[in-house]
Amino acid sequence: MNYQSLAHIAHRLRLQKASASELIAQAIERFESSESSVHAYKHWAGPQAAKQAEAVDVFLSAGHDLGPLMGIPVSVKDLFGVPRMPVFAGTDTAFDESWQTAGPLVQSVIAQLGIITGKTHTVEFAFGGLGTNPHWGAPVNPWSAKGAPRAAGGSSSGAGVSLAQGSALVALGTDTAGSVRIPAALTGQCALKTTHGRWSSTGIVPLSPSLDTPGLLCRTVEDLAYAFAALDGQERGQIAPQDLAGLRIGVIQNVVWDEIDPAIAANTEAALSTLERKGALVSRVTLPGVDAVLEIFRQGGLAASELRSFMNSNCPERIARLDPMVRARVEAADQISSTEYLRRRDVLANSGRDALSVFDQCDVLVSPTVAISAPLLSEVADDAAYRTANMLTLRNTAIANLFGWSALTLPSGLDGNGIPSGLQLIAPPMQETRLLAMALGVEAAVGRAPDLLGRPPLLSSAT
Amino acid sequence: MNYQSLAHIAHRLRLQKASASELIAQAIERFESSESSVHAYKHWAGPQAAKQAEAVDVFLSAGHDLGPLMGIPVSVKDLFGVPRMPVFAGTDTAFDESWQTAGPLVQSVIAQLGIITGKTHTVEFAFGGLGTNPHWGAPVNPWSAKGAPRAAGGSSSGAGVSLAQGSALVALGTDTAGSVRIPAALTGQCALKTTHGRWSSTGIVPLSPSLDTPGLLCRTVEDLAYAFAALDGQERGQIAPQDLAGLRIGVIQNVVWDEIDPAIAANTEAALSTLERKGALVSRVTLPGVDAVLEIFRQGGLAASELRSFMNSNCPERIARLDPMVRARVEAADQISSTEYLRRRDVLANSGRDALSVFDQCDVLVSPTVAISAPLLSEVADDAAYRTANMLTLRNTAIANLFGWSALTLPSGLDGNGIPSGLQLIAPPMQETRLLAMALGVEAAVGRAPDLLGRPPLLSSAT
Repeated sequence: MNYQSLAHIAHRLRLQKASASELIAQAIERFESSESSVHAYKHWAGPQAAKQAEAVDVFLSAGHDLGPLMGIPVSVKDLFGVPRMPVFAGTDTAFDESWQTAGPLVQSVIAQLGIITGKTHTVEFAFGGLGTNPHWGAPVNPWSAKGAPRAAGGSSSGAGVSLAQGSALVALGTDTAGSVRIPAALTGQCALKTTHGRWSSTGIVPLSPSLDTPGLLCRTVEDLAYAFAALDGQERGQIAPQDLAGLRIGVIQNVVWDEIDPAIAANTEAALSTLERKGALVSRVTLPGVDAVLEIFRQGGLAASELRSFMNSNCPERIARLDPMVRARVEAADQISSTEYLRRRDVLANSGRDALSVFDQCDVLVSPTVAISAPLLSEVADDAAYRTANMLTLRNTAIANLFGWSALTLPSGLDGNGIPSGLQLIAPPMQETRLLAMALGVEAAVGRAPDLLGRPPLLSSAT
Repeated sequence: MNYQSLAHIAHRLRLQKASASELIAQAIERFESSESSVHAYKHWAGPQAAKQAEAVDVFLSAGHDLGPLMGIPVSVKDLFGVPRMPVFAGTDTAFDESWQTAGPLVQSVIAQLGIITGKTHTVEFAFGGLGTNPHWGAPVNPWSAKGAPRAAGGSSSGAGVSLAQGSALVALGTDTAGSVRIPAALTGQCALKTTHGRWSSTGIVPLSPSLDTPGLLCRTVEDLAYAFAALDGQERGQIAPQDLAGLRIGVIQNVVWDEIDPAIAANTEAALSTLERKGALVSRVTLPGVDAVLEIFRQGGLAASELRSFMNSNCPERIARLDPMVRARVEAADQISSTEYLRRRDVLANSGRDALSVFDQCDVLVSPTVAISAPLLSEVADDAAYRTANMLTLRNTAIANLFGWSALTLPSGLDGNGIPSGLQLIAPPMQETRLLAMALGVEAAVGRAPDLLGRPPLLSSAT
């Protein structure tokens, strides 16, 4: 699979040097040759996508341009409503049809004649960072060694796998504590977590409305910038890479390196050295307020109460049927008083505002995206092991959510298990365009994922 | 042809009780059975439209909604750029490909997956009110008696005919002095002239940029309101009819009744009586400033200078090849000094502003849309007869353009020649939504065109 950027593909589609039908045929082939081993989709819509691609080609051949995602295969996390596709949100039972209504983000994909390939697997109610799901089975990390399946990361577990697989070129996900960045990092992709409120969460099954954000996963930062501009109401046109010379990079030194896998630490430091060689000014900074917000996060944050409240109102009968790993956290909400809930909100809001002062010293913050390697699925079947791995996996990404900031991840290399590791870039709220511009500069220095990482072992036979 | 409103058709498309393919098949059948007698299209795109309709059905069947015009057949005046369709603008030679780029209005049709049936005939450079064209032949008014072809009105001459024919359900036109209202009135359709500047004229071959406005023709006011809301950036949702009780209708008493056809006068008065019976407060008002602006109009207005300037810069070689009726007016621009041109602009702007005071006495102004019946095409082959008929045809509609106001027309009945006559409603600038709401009330009282007029003689065999 030779990498071609979305911009390049879009250009070729408009010149009729490529067709949407060919793109989808390739996506279907990728799906068929690998799905049984990696398990990305809850609902696969390949045949419908093939018909839609032919329809898109009719409009392309008439010179009609419906937008940057026209004819591009897009996978959608099974938390979003898509017309006439079932919504499970990782639970055991389909939600009623009203949840199939497209919200603004999916409607924008539809209005551009982007082609939805299907609904990707998610952790139940997106409440977990590893990507496991006892109802439908966990997607398998395509970078696992054969016979030793590892987690794909979550909660947008199928999203990252769909990109690795090649069944989609853009994946819609959601991120409440790291749910687009973690699966992207662990499967060798890139992902953007938008600022809360920038993109509407209407039409998405909620986990924690106070912190839920729609997000994007793509193969490269280049594609991420393209898809972001295609979907963002404010951003228009191409985002140019920022020159690294003089860019002030602040490496978070507290918390994010604790208990880190040495190979991941090494990949991160190697990337930072590369950036320094290109003229970036790398310094170590202490991010204030992290301990306070992570302490709240470990106690269930806001999500436990907010999901419990949603389920009480909408589907109380499902609580007993929840994934035990999810149910434990939902039920723990009963111990959280309203004053405690409101105290948490205040601490998060104040901490995020106060911590902004760190950007006096730097233009962007950096950390390892995930501190540990993707665990073996067999390991995290155990409750205690699940809890430990889940919390360590989510820790570094959750900070940006708890502070209300924007963040993205791009690959930094492979760890000792052959699993990709990610470099997280963090910026103030609503600074997505600047963040992407800086990340484009970083990607140009560190290398684009397909060049940096090669092919995942579980998919190499498919090429 | 049983009338079904666009809203009803759109609803049935979404329920899959109708398909875009069926709609287009019907449009193609209408075109094929009548085009040789009425001559609506410069460029017919039926086969492409049929393919696009099938493509639209693919998205409809997936529950995707791209907008209110999805699957609706739309004809486009051959002044607008449409990708990969030639632009002649009524001249003898195609403009270069850059003119095929869709401007915002056509792009909105395309983005909603409205289906463009082709490019309709226009007077050369839209400079004339009768609809004649020596290069490509004049469209024939479908209400002509057999063997005695009459003008279809212009300059959007093919637009009105395409609706009468049933090859389109919405027609895009332009109006600089009456060019959507005249062909609508003379072919039994409805039309809206928008306020100058409300809709972009980008991507449209200009006649007089100071006064050119994109406009809409539809079968009924009901459809006009639907299509306006679909295309207008500000208006969203359905426009509700205004109750006639207490509505203050000001009938213009100066100028617009001069030299009027008695049957057209009678149709207008009958409509006004109906409105009065329904509770409207009908009064006669004198519209100030009309003589001054019409005197300028008779001297070539702004269009003569502005078209001459455009042709000098873009296609001087075409001047000698212009329709003699158009060339005479273009060449007359050489007698207009820059100070005279600027004086005219001032008079128009001041007159339009001053005349707004009339709306202290009434909510809407009314006049006959066109004072005379559609002339026989054989009559207006003569220069002097052309000039007289052209000026009388344009007079009542031009007032709204010269003043910078919004206006629409709906049918009032048939005249002594069996040709439809129109009732013109005029409102202040940017009051399109209110104007449409009032016109919906008027239509409900006077009757919708298809019920009021019946079938045009030249097309009756086609049913």
